[in-house]
Amino acid sequence: MDLAISDDQRLHGHLIGRQGSRADLNTPVLVVEADALDRNIARMAALAAQKGVRLRPHAKTHKSVEIARRQLAAGAVGVCCAKLGEAEALAAGGIAGLHITSPVVAAPGLARLAALNALSERLSVVCDDPANLAQLAEAGAGVRPLGVFIDVDPGIHRTGVASPEAAAELARIILSQPSLRYEGVQMYCGREQHIEDFAERRAAIAERTDYLRTVIAALEAVGAPPPVITGGGTGTHRIDLELGVFTELQVGSYIFMDDQYAACDLTGAGADDLPFERSLFVETRVVSANATGLVTLDGGFKAFATEGKPPTPAAGAPDGAFCVFMGDEHTALIGKGVETHLRPGAMVRLNPPHCDPTVEHYESYHLLRGDTLVDIWPVSARGRAR
Amino acid sequence: MDLAISDDQRLHGHLIGRQGSRADLNTPVLVVEADALDRNIARMAALAAQKGVRLRPHAKTHKSVEIARRQLAAGAVGVCCAKLGEAEALAAGGIAGLHITSPVVAAPGLARLAALNALSERLSVVCDDPANLAQLAEAGAGVRPLGVFIDVDPGIHRTGVASPEAAAELARIILSQPSLRYEGVQMYCGREQHIEDFAERRAAIAERTDYLRTVIAALEAVGAPPPVITGGGTGTHRIDLELGVFTELQVGSYIFMDDQYAACDLTGAGADDLPFERSLFVETRVVSANATGLVTLDGGFKAFATEGKPPTPAAGAPDGAFCVFMGDEHTALIGKGVETHLRPGAMVRLNPPHCDPTVEHYESYHLLRGDTLVDIWPVSARGRAR
Repeated sequence: MDLAISDDQRLHGHLIGRQGSRADLNTPVLVVEADALDRNIARMAALAAQKGVRLRPHAKTHKSVEIARRQLAAGAVGVCCAKLGEAEALAAGGIAGLHITSPVVAAPGLARLAALNALSERLSVVCDDPANLAQLAEAGAGVRPLGVFIDVDPGIHRTGVASPEAAAELARIILSQPSLRYEGVQMYCGREQHIEDFAERRAAIAERTDYLRTVIAALEAVGAPPPVITGGGTGTHRIDLELGVFTELQVGSYIFMDDQYAACDLTGAGADDLPFERSLFVETRVVSANATGLVTLDGGFKAFATEGKPPTPAAGAPDGAFCVFMGDEHTALIGKGVETHLRPGAMVRLNPPHCDPTVEHYESYHLLRGDTLVDIWPVSARGRAR
Repeated sequence: MDLAISDDQRLHGHLIGRQGSRADLNTPVLVVEADALDRNIARMAALAAQKGVRLRPHAKTHKSVEIARRQLAAGAVGVCCAKLGEAEALAAGGIAGLHITSPVVAAPGLARLAALNALSERLSVVCDDPANLAQLAEAGAGVRPLGVFIDVDPGIHRTGVASPEAAAELARIILSQPSLRYEGVQMYCGREQHIEDFAERRAAIAERTDYLRTVIAALEAVGAPPPVITGGGTGTHRIDLELGVFTELQVGSYIFMDDQYAACDLTGAGADDLPFERSLFVETRVVSANATGLVTLDGGFKAFATEGKPPTPAAGAPDGAFCVFMGDEHTALIGKGVETHLRPGAMVRLNPPHCDPTVEHYESYHLLRGDTLVDIWPVSARGRAR
């Protein structure tokens, strides 16, 4: 085997540009509607530009050099990465302005962070702990200072400092370290992103933004006004732009959408008023059709995010049919008469329940225009969870 | 980047054989206790040999050429694969006697199946549909006949024929096709594997085995006695061996174990009497410790199987501490005083809730003896879900 050729390139590279080649794809396969993706990128860029807010889209969603390039071309100042390994993969693809949104705390990671900082311009990382700041100061003592954002816990206790006073204490240390560059403050309200009702989500995020204002005031009081205030997500982007505290948004899922965000009223005009299009799907096929009212599709726990609901039919299934996971490799499509409409080999397109952990299962995106495969893009940082 | 070097080799290759190198691993990382793995392989081989039953371990669990080699060296007649792509990857690593346990029904897959059959000796695949048999007969019309097992639905309607009569009809067609080799019958009772109580599981599987006897009788009645009767799993292996109907076992998870199987009484002597050792773990690290009674570990939905319960602490955590998922990248470890015992950077070893979809997230196994990394094995068929 030639390791330099991905399995997807081996299976599908020859199909690129061939009319109708969607039907020749081996399934399950992760597909992206290329034009819908482009429109989503342009829409979010326009919203942010209108308000004069920087975009630093979260690359944990796509982990793709190609998609990051398109976001930068649309005006993004860089991209966020959840983990150092993602940042390494994107930097290797020529992406700059990388911000790592989780702390890097252990010796092996700190050595890699120092190496990446020497290679990559405008690199930054969050910090929520004074002992970690000392380690970061060492990592930044090379070619150029390392950028640091103070991470603020919005109340879920995942990461971040626990009080405005703790934030001010970190700022004081950062400003005293010549090998660190004070970038500002980050607060990511993960829990609030998926509150389905707009008014309820707005109230929750307004309350958290009030808290963020107290953090900013504490920073200003010690002579450390944050140059950048970064955070927000697809669920709250309209509210964040309206409240006007964040100067940089870390939106991620807007490029693809998924069932979880499609269930949210993102604009206040109802969940049917989706401001972004679904662009990400998994194409599957029927592999067995011997039962009444049930056929078996060829993707299961290893083909989808599984921490929530199962996927939903997007195309190819009769109205009213629904999915139930059937283990690692299969999903049942259940509905009246499905076994007569959909014989083995029939293609059924499914919506991912949650985009990020669905993408994680795949080596590549298969880009479609209509029924034609137009490109294959690697999931460049696949599995880079460290 | 040199694509021929995996990211794990780049990060950890230099640590192989270095005393105490476990502490230098970047986390989250998938580790295997090498000696426990070897003992598990030997134990199942001995059990099967004692009863004169063939072992064809299921490689969907490990997807690894190295582990398949060890299973073959211990006497296995081959390995099972859930998908054609897994079989291709294992065949490329020199593994023969491959049996594909899900139907291959679509044109692109059938072409690949024909190519693989030309390369790989003793290849077989299941079938549950007469139209598919005609396709398989074409795929087998090359260098050598293609082996076919009749797949029998045990009642969950995932795959398999729905009646003894349907099985007999398929057998008749298989025997009439010179390009097909009649291998026998497969019935996999997936639902029964995880019934935690031994007596309850035994009763369920005995009832299903009675049904399988009626299928076998129907095959014998049309002059098609099955040469091989394949199925079973780690949950039912003792019962399958005792009932004596299966002539070949497809056990998979016994090599690693996981929380789901550890909760089952596998021998009838209680769930504490684990006949196999846990050999698979995920090493994680604390990345944030600012809350009372909670620290944050660096693996989440992208580091574990997520369709069931969260992982559990295996080592490094205080007694009574437990885990809660905190999104794509993080898991909370909750317990009295954890934030004082475990500061950022501290390693915590977790048990995977379910082995197969946990492995799927990783590029490699990191083999440990004590605290020393002794080897890195690729997850050869990672992501080969098609």
